[in-house]
Amino acid sequence: MKKVLLTGATGYIGKFTIKHLLARGYTVHAVISKTIDDKCPEKSENLIWHKANLLSVEETEKLIKSVRPTHLLHFAWFVEHGKFWNAVENLRWVSASLYLAECFAENGGRRIVCAGTCAEYDWARQGVFFEKDLPDRPQTLYGTAKTALSLTLEKFAAVYGLDFASGKIFFPFGADELPSRLIPSVIISLLEHKPAATSHGRQIRDYMFVEDIAEAFVALLDSDVCGAVNIASGRHTQLKEIIEIIAEIIGKPELLQIGAMAVDENEPKEIVGDTERLNTLVNYNKDFDLRERLKETVNYWKRVYEIND
Amino acid sequence: MKKVLLTGATGYIGKFTIKHLLARGYTVHAVISKTIDDKCPEKSENLIWHKANLLSVEETEKLIKSVRPTHLLHFAWFVEHGKFWNAVENLRWVSASLYLAECFAENGGRRIVCAGTCAEYDWARQGVFFEKDLPDRPQTLYGTAKTALSLTLEKFAAVYGLDFASGKIFFPFGADELPSRLIPSVIISLLEHKPAATSHGRQIRDYMFVEDIAEAFVALLDSDVCGAVNIASGRHTQLKEIIEIIAEIIGKPELLQIGAMAVDENEPKEIVGDTERLNTLVNYNKDFDLRERLKETVNYWKRVYEIND
Repeated sequence: MKKVLLTGATGYIGKFTIKHLLARGYTVHAVISKTIDDKCPEKSENLIWHKANLLSVEETEKLIKSVRPTHLLHFAWFVEHGKFWNAVENLRWVSASLYLAECFAENGGRRIVCAGTCAEYDWARQGVFFEKDLPDRPQTLYGTAKTALSLTLEKFAAVYGLDFASGKIFFPFGADELPSRLIPSVIISLLEHKPAATSHGRQIRDYMFVEDIAEAFVALLDSDVCGAVNIASGRHTQLKEIIEIIAEIIGKPELLQIGAMAVDENEPKEIVGDTERLNTLVNYNKDFDLRERLKETVNYWKRVYEIND
Repeated sequence: MKKVLLTGATGYIGKFTIKHLLARGYTVHAVISKTIDDKCPEKSENLIWHKANLLSVEETEKLIKSVRPTHLLHFAWFVEHGKFWNAVENLRWVSASLYLAECFAENGGRRIVCAGTCAEYDWARQGVFFEKDLPDRPQTLYGTAKTALSLTLEKFAAVYGLDFASGKIFFPFGADELPSRLIPSVIISLLEHKPAATSHGRQIRDYMFVEDIAEAFVALLDSDVCGAVNIASGRHTQLKEIIEIIAEIIGKPELLQIGAMAVDENEPKEIVGDTERLNTLVNYNKDFDLRERLKETVNYWKRVYEIND
């Protein structure tokens, strides 16, 4: 029987993994740190919610001993927008994750998949990033902490006979992204008939629809692939292209002020993930229609703001 | 005022740092996890002993808040011979060390120096190891955990305005080494008039006298050098040379059985540290007389075993 402990289960990516986990036959033990509320709509006899603070060693140990999961899909982390890059909480989440893995191994766990990040790569190199170049020299404490965790758990798993993989997330977009981030902020401005000021938008990023990221993580969990895997589209998307599609969908291209904001000179020109390992080893090859996915994202924000066409 | 918190203060290397710290004007707050016993002979008005379990977040926090050190010299780790290479305790010491650093930073700490290890290098490459090649691909969980800690604390320190350095220890020898390790085991066998069986002894290692390692660590702490620094002699010493000098000192060359034990085919032929950073940046250049130091080591074991010449 496949029994997965899912952390960060109400988070941006985690919540979209649940239906895929259930579809692949997992019993899902989903962890939330706060109260169980209407952010967790899925109900199923194979979905059990647990309330636990993973920063507490006592609660982690109790949770693992009561669930005894075979699989661990670990998204929980400190992700407060604008703060997470260099927050001291990154250190605490390294420790919490190490202890979670230790308890998991001691209680019969077999396979761990953690959420890593493209920020584990040295962005100063720019361009396309390959898993073989890890460990790299990340710029931020967040990227460094995720690297430290990946390195340690990969070796820990090898020594103790577990499987370990780490999915490196690039640039997600889709429903429920934080409103202060680029795509939601442009959508919200235009929906409110306000100007949307952006940088020149020539930066190239590997954007991937958040629900596809979730699906790819479940494919990775359900595979026997170990080590680092870029969870990326491999597509070279200019920010400008995304912004212009959004304006076209909403029908307000005149409100765009592309180039009105300065670009930090340290901002990398291009961050794209190589997808060979994801495509070939994990066998996840789904493509997506950027315009359709952005339309869904706009519709999500219309619902949030109760705007009718 | 320079106030250092010294962890692992009764350990193999840590205990020899105390006199150098005092000589350089530090007030030394020395941490031991067990009872204060006669292993800590130094007494001074500038030496204060603390009993604390650094694996407990409560005890760590309480200790740091009461001492408020300006400097942290961190040797404490799980070092049980034969077990430490791949013990789960390595994960717990990563977490304990991260929390120690966090509390230190929050309470006015300025400079951290941690004990790293030559096991952070990929020994499969063999030869001479340079700090610029870190982070590398360590073979063991111990080397990986120390790498993870170094990476995280180096970035944490950069973000929070602290100094951080990590001394990579190569092959110490000297008083109080664990009896089961190569040099003590040969000495003890010969002192007991028993045969000493070893491998062919052609392996080359960077041996450094333990008291010199301690002195070099204090020089590193008292400098403003940041990042990785090999605490190494840079000398290419064959194990065979050491064993033969020991036998000559004790006067029992006929009891040596060099070549009687097989060598693991994965055992690296050569592990030596480049000392450019230690010599030039830290300005630590002390040389040592191998024969004299081995004689001191033999005399130490004679005292332990109460053997008179």
